[in-house]
Amino acid sequence: MSSVLVSQEEDFPQWYQEVIAKAQLAENGPVRGTMVIRPWGYAIWERLQASLDERIKATGAHNAYFPLLIPEAFLRREAEHVEGFSPELAVVTHAGGKALEEPAVVRPTSETIVNSSFARWISSYRDLPLLINQWANVVRWELRPRLFLRTSEFLWQEGHTAHATREEAHRYALRILDDVYADAMINELAIPVFRGRKTDREKFAGAEISWSCEGLMRDDRALQMGTSHELGQNFARAFRIQFSDRDRQLRHVWQTSWGASTRVLGAMIMVHGDDFGLRIPPRLAPTQVVVIAARAGEGVLETARTLVAELRQASVRVELDDQLEISLGRRIVNYELRGVPLRIELGPRDLAAWQAIVARRARAAKETLPLGDVAARVPQMLEADQRELLAQATSLRDTRTRPAQTIDEALQIARKGCARLPWPACGQRGEDRLNQAGISVRCLIRQDNAPVDDPHADGVEALAARAY
Amino acid sequence: MSSVLVSQEEDFPQWYQEVIAKAQLAENGPVRGTMVIRPWGYAIWERLQASLDERIKATGAHNAYFPLLIPEAFLRREAEHVEGFSPELAVVTHAGGKALEEPAVVRPTSETIVNSSFARWISSYRDLPLLINQWANVVRWELRPRLFLRTSEFLWQEGHTAHATREEAHRYALRILDDVYADAMINELAIPVFRGRKTDREKFAGAEISWSCEGLMRDDRALQMGTSHELGQNFARAFRIQFSDRDRQLRHVWQTSWGASTRVLGAMIMVHGDDFGLRIPPRLAPTQVVVIAARAGEGVLETARTLVAELRQASVRVELDDQLEISLGRRIVNYELRGVPLRIELGPRDLAAWQAIVARRARAAKETLPLGDVAARVPQMLEADQRELLAQATSLRDTRTRPAQTIDEALQIARKGCARLPWPACGQRGEDRLNQAGISVRCLIRQDNAPVDDPHADGVEALAARAY
Repeated sequence: MSSVLVSQEEDFPQWYQEVIAKAQLAENGPVRGTMVIRPWGYAIWERLQASLDERIKATGAHNAYFPLLIPEAFLRREAEHVEGFSPELAVVTHAGGKALEEPAVVRPTSETIVNSSFARWISSYRDLPLLINQWANVVRWELRPRLFLRTSEFLWQEGHTAHATREEAHRYALRILDDVYADAMINELAIPVFRGRKTDREKFAGAEISWSCEGLMRDDRALQMGTSHELGQNFARAFRIQFSDRDRQLRHVWQTSWGASTRVLGAMIMVHGDDFGLRIPPRLAPTQVVVIAARAGEGVLETARTLVAELRQASVRVELDDQLEISLGRRIVNYELRGVPLRIELGPRDLAAWQAIVARRARAAKETLPLGDVAARVPQMLEADQRELLAQATSLRDTRTRPAQTIDEALQIARKGCARLPWPACGQRGEDRLNQAGISVRCLIRQDNAPVDDPHADGVEALAARAY
Repeated sequence: MSSVLVSQEEDFPQWYQEVIAKAQLAENGPVRGTMVIRPWGYAIWERLQASLDERIKATGAHNAYFPLLIPEAFLRREAEHVEGFSPELAVVTHAGGKALEEPAVVRPTSETIVNSSFARWISSYRDLPLLINQWANVVRWELRPRLFLRTSEFLWQEGHTAHATREEAHRYALRILDDVYADAMINELAIPVFRGRKTDREKFAGAEISWSCEGLMRDDRALQMGTSHELGQNFARAFRIQFSDRDRQLRHVWQTSWGASTRVLGAMIMVHGDDFGLRIPPRLAPTQVVVIAARAGEGVLETARTLVAELRQASVRVELDDQLEISLGRRIVNYELRGVPLRIELGPRDLAAWQAIVARRARAAKETLPLGDVAARVPQMLEADQRELLAQATSLRDTRTRPAQTIDEALQIARKGCARLPWPACGQRGEDRLNQAGISVRCLIRQDNAPVDDPHADGVEALAARAY
């Protein structure tokens, strides 16, 4: 294998830019910070979307759609919320050839506009829980944009729910964190995640408690990959969302909101990618297998076509490469770059031996298989390589995550990995010190992995790392 | 049956508003002209989206995503395009707390930004055809907004393609019109459509030729339901999209663009809806069947649950209604409003006779079925009622579409229907006269349904109608 990318070791940020460009995942848009998602990148997103959507619906939520444009005044109704989002807003001041009487902001998130509808839709305990999700674009102006990770516009889903009790909202927020986000990150993206509670400093503007999934990238930086917030009654009060309870008392609802975005594609790139390019988890790969007619020869193309038909029959997403006019080496480099999980090479010699060479991107290994076995073996190989990517990522993360007892130790460890530091040894002051060194507390976790209800309880640890 | 809506006969526009509100399809957003699509409306849209997406991909196109925000200067590069869209633009002048150096428009359509990428992606005939689709929201400021039909923001798909020859672009534009739009309108939405060519006055700003699908609503107005444009080389010149052809000559590409939007849900409402509410075509209905425990009685709930399980087993989208505390009449009114295709009512007497009553929304008819036959019969009934809705809509349209020989006749007919007028008898002057009377030429068609290559050829007719 020969690489067309700078190595990760040499210059990780440069590698990241190059692999996105050369694998044709995305490119910068003309307005600063915006992104064009190219077909190969978008097809991965579509599969991830479908897998998240299925999990979201399984929790009982329904999809809906709320307007892109929000009256500026709506954002001001929740004090922390407006403070958090004001610096990032894009504002429409003119429309239809005239100045607007009231400027409209392009949604940075939709709590305010969703809740203005919820106030009309909810009147009785019978209307609860109300579980709504939307797939949408949002705009948050970015000073230091970076494709997928920080873009001025990004695609995401945002869930918004209303419940009769705090306890129910709490359980639902955690269900989303576990059964939707963590499950999809682990089983679709093949990325192990820490599930934890945000510190007060890191929580969502307007939330009482924020929960997040955090992944560790190959360059030892952490990436927040999905967040689920308990909003308490903050927005319910701001938007007067009240219901008549079973005892006929009027009460404010308890709410959650939660989101995951195109940002997680950045995690997929940075967790699995190597010096040769992307490695896309087989479940998300738009093309799982490419069958390559390696060299011209009698029967090669016919056999390759038969193989493709057999694999398609076995529900494998497969492509034929019959571009004999392009050198095999160049074609291989391209499939490695794009991260196609399996590459099946077929030339005259293989045909004579009635065999095919299967190159597995997840293992950097080649195997020779009798031609008659390929269609039956490939689905197992794809499943095995999905697990293999998760195993590699888990092993890397666990090697790079180490315990610390003091802030100094944590600072040391977080230079090259992730530190687990007892929260009592850190606290808000410790968090200040970490922040000054460019390190943040990604979330609070417990050794037994149970949710952190009380940050001050025994066994609560802060995960400290540099972050994207 | 009793109705909670004003009748169509009495006040069609009022009926339209009421049915959207009471069936909980959508509501107005706080910024003028914007729309909240509620879960019931969105679930219909999701199914239509999936059916369009499948057809679009079958033509070889791939999905991608381009930015919401477009530099204002991009729109000015194509003269007709900017003239057509300028009055409708929403403009972001401030972002990130500062005035932008160059204002950004919120996309009203994406030809300009897509083509700025195409110019980078295309260099050789090997890169062609380039077939791209995106699902997105767009903003066009509306002075007289109306839910689904004209909203300041709407959801749609927009396709953008580049080809080596005019002929290939022409064929592809018509393939989209026929195999994607007309096919989905007829077979999913159960709406018969005229496929035709727009007159110069009605064509898309920047196109050489526009094709459209036109439906006829119950109030005799026409609605444009999907358009496919041949852009010639207009945008290719404006954005310098050139390719090196097989003969090594540098040539501009030939392009198409095409779109269908949430507007078609307005057509579904106005073609199939009746005085009792919506009638959703079974293929698009989020819930195809509701099994209603009509009255309390031994075994009623258990039997209803068993029936639901059997129907689900048969791949029917089915819901159980066990709200015995709400009167049967009120529940029925609600399902009629929401347009659920089949309603199965089950009470103690039915149970004693081992039968169920099936009410078919498409036919305003009830049938009694032996309980053991229900699960086997329902899928056939749904298919039959899908066809029934199309048959009713086709019959209504054909009754209301009549030939005219003169402009005066066409004016007369178009007061209550749609006129087919030989184009030579109309022409641009005739079109002026029709327009003055609030009637427009929806498209030009041929009696043999072939595409209108030459508007002046024999047998070309203008479809004249009032329009949404």
